[in-house]
Amino acid sequence: MNRIAPQTGVAFPLDRGATLRIVDPTGAQVCDLFCVTRADVRETLSGGRSIDYADKLYLTTGDVLYSNRSTPLLTIVHDDVGRHDLTLTPCSPEMFVKLRGDDGTHPSCFENLRVPLARYGVQRDTITCSFNIFMDVRFDADTGRMLLGAPPGRAGDAIVLRAEVDLYVGLTACSSEVTNAGRCKPIDYRVYEGGPASE
Amino acid sequence: MNRIAPQTGVAFPLDRGATLRIVDPTGAQVCDLFCVTRADVRETLSGGRSIDYADKLYLTTGDVLYSNRSTPLLTIVHDDVGRHDLTLTPCSPEMFVKLRGDDGTHPSCFENLRVPLARYGVQRDTITCSFNIFMDVRFDADTGRMLLGAPPGRAGDAIVLRAEVDLYVGLTACSSEVTNAGRCKPIDYRVYEGGPASE
Repeated sequence: MNRIAPQTGVAFPLDRGATLRIVDPTGAQVCDLFCVTRADVRETLSGGRSIDYADKLYLTTGDVLYSNRSTPLLTIVHDDVGRHDLTLTPCSPEMFVKLRGDDGTHPSCFENLRVPLARYGVQRDTITCSFNIFMDVRFDADTGRMLLGAPPGRAGDAIVLRAEVDLYVGLTACSSEVTNAGRCKPIDYRVYEGGPASE
Repeated sequence: MNRIAPQTGVAFPLDRGATLRIVDPTGAQVCDLFCVTRADVRETLSGGRSIDYADKLYLTTGDVLYSNRSTPLLTIVHDDVGRHDLTLTPCSPEMFVKLRGDDGTHPSCFENLRVPLARYGVQRDTITCSFNIFMDVRFDADTGRMLLGAPPGRAGDAIVLRAEVDLYVGLTACSSEVTNAGRCKPIDYRVYEGGPASE
């Protein structure tokens, strides 16, 4: 396994047919995922299209993440947790200033996706809503009030995604103390080139 | 008032300080709004950031629509309906093919935003989640199942938005029969240059 240190991120190519296993090694830690197609990095993950096509907010095993051009990008082939968010953008320096009174220097998933994805030509403005793995975001059905729960993953819980096209994928170990039950922890991941889906 | 014919769209500049009044003239009709800043058309409306900063899914009077760079773009200064969606992308040719069995020729909000916004230099891939005015999208708080209600607006109901920066705004009279209680109807709008907010 590869380890993403707390409050950092990585990006890498993921070939069509390969599977990506993402593990919460400690429990209660979120991992933001954003991806673009290698054929055209302007074609990006779209939370809105994915929610629309799944007809639900919480995607899990068998569900598909779509691009802004309605291309299937990733299929969830295994999921120990079943609670991930698709509505929110990655935490950003501006978010920490606005909501937490930070001075603009707090580490963020946005910067931890933007910087490693930039070397593949991904422009900052194209990083929109991420797939916020192991993040429990609920909304009151009537009022719409957001309810943010502690990340429900336990130590060793995993999600496995299969690439449906050649991708560049960015992953983070989420930088927000509030989101991650008070302490930012690492995330583990491994790529299986056409290997077993849930190993 | 200006009228947007059923299943069509428009785009226009909206100056900082101007207000935009959008009216449902018949009742039960959705209007998708997307906007970008005139200073840099890559800076676009962000549903994810707007939901995060509002701490809720349903924005109404006093709430702000933010950009992908966390800039306030539009403030809702009047709202007769109080139910609008920020999670979904505009209906698109691909959506009608995937979910409705269409042949790819159905009119769509995506095309009705894309084409008029293109003359301002807006690229198609930057049109992400729209502000889907008068659209009743709810999610079961536990399962996340999407519940699409008939648009709750009655004839004459309005929303008024004030521009916080110079914008290009796209508006549609939504093209989806299913979303609009079985029949696609017009939308009316008017721009007040620094005029009264709710007249």
